[in-house]
Amino acid sequence: MSGFRASSIKALVFDVFGTVVDWRGSIIREGEVLAAKGLQVDWPAFADAWRAGYQPAMQRVRVSEGGSEGGGGWANIDTLHREILDGLLPRFGLDMLTEAERAHLNRVWHRLDPWADSVRGLRQLKSHFVISTLSNGNVALLVKMAKHARLPWDCVLSAELFRHYKPDPEVYQGAARLLGFEPAQVLMVAAHPSDLAAAARAGLRTAYVPRPLEHGRGGAMEPVGELRFDVVAADFLALAEQLGA
Amino acid sequence: MSGFRASSIKALVFDVFGTVVDWRGSIIREGEVLAAKGLQVDWPAFADAWRAGYQPAMQRVRVSEGGSEGGGGWANIDTLHREILDGLLPRFGLDMLTEAERAHLNRVWHRLDPWADSVRGLRQLKSHFVISTLSNGNVALLVKMAKHARLPWDCVLSAELFRHYKPDPEVYQGAARLLGFEPAQVLMVAAHPSDLAAAARAGLRTAYVPRPLEHGRGGAMEPVGELRFDVVAADFLALAEQLGA
Repeated sequence: MSGFRASSIKALVFDVFGTVVDWRGSIIREGEVLAAKGLQVDWPAFADAWRAGYQPAMQRVRVSEGGSEGGGGWANIDTLHREILDGLLPRFGLDMLTEAERAHLNRVWHRLDPWADSVRGLRQLKSHFVISTLSNGNVALLVKMAKHARLPWDCVLSAELFRHYKPDPEVYQGAARLLGFEPAQVLMVAAHPSDLAAAARAGLRTAYVPRPLEHGRGGAMEPVGELRFDVVAADFLALAEQLGA
Repeated sequence: MSGFRASSIKALVFDVFGTVVDWRGSIIREGEVLAAKGLQVDWPAFADAWRAGYQPAMQRVRVSEGGSEGGGGWANIDTLHREILDGLLPRFGLDMLTEAERAHLNRVWHRLDPWADSVRGLRQLKSHFVISTLSNGNVALLVKMAKHARLPWDCVLSAELFRHYKPDPEVYQGAARLLGFEPAQVLMVAAHPSDLAAAARAGLRTAYVPRPLEHGRGGAMEPVGELRFDVVAADFLALAEQLGA
């Protein structure tokens, strides 16, 4: 990743789940509200199981989209989250939840809370750059989350717009095209090395912001391996400082 | 348009050119900066001629998209504005402009100024509703305009995402789908009756906010004819008040 200059960057696009918001902590907190009603559930295990269903569900969509000419196989993340949730409820003793309660619980992904530095860091970055989501979450989910968490996006870009899930290259290339910049003028920000590696293959620049608490205290982080990034920052405030914003 | 209740509305989607921003006044002001350099041009006539090329250019894209299987005929508004501009320069004695000057002038559409009530009205509406663009302008143009004019959108939706220009129904229906609402939960806000009539045919609710100065003092407004709207408001502040925002 030679020759990186912050001055060549016009836009920052952000992974959201885990990078901007704390999905696991938010789901556990929401679970504790239900727990107060007498439900005995291992909410951390529940959150982890829900998230674990995510990659396989997107892979099923990829296969289905690839197989059908008209691309009729697309399903958005709200739908995938609900399918996974319905599969988990019996295992966690939650099959007594009503349809309305299930629908509400599924929308917990619209109500995720940001990491402590996220909003202030984004505001600072926004004063110098275009800032956008680039998430597998669908547009409606990302818009509602932004209102809930006061995330000041300039633009809400989603895998949904390209009918491809990250790490497919169409998502990264499509984001640069819609924002009107060359891929090398766009910096992908993520807590997940695999997301950044795919962005780099698509020609984007990369900023790694590790979120060591994403999977809880002592939880495993995705290994970095041999990967190199254009920028590494401890949080969004440090990222803004490194980029001169 | 019977049975309209503001409480059923979840999102407001806005036409932008003319409804949120004063394209004509902004182009004239930008022209006057050039005029200070000694250029003698009838800038109001220039602005009107540029805008007059807009509908025919989109119609050419519609025909081209319809005719090609892969939809390879799509061209965004930045491209169409530039084609129209190149055609106008000789007529207005501007053919001495360099490529860089032409590119800069073309991006005047990214630098349009809002009407006096736009920003304050949008802020008020944003506290109660999802607010989004729904413009024929491309995403990059709308994002840059929002930064220039401080338009606080929750989401930037464009005809570009649907590869159809308004008033094609795909644009209105696609906006409701991406925002995760039923068409009847979405209120289209526009200064142009024809845009609202198409939104209503697609199942959206409609708010007419006339902008009598869009075409200058004494300039013609698009006739309302027999059309009826769910809401009529003098500006965005009045709209917020009527919607209880």
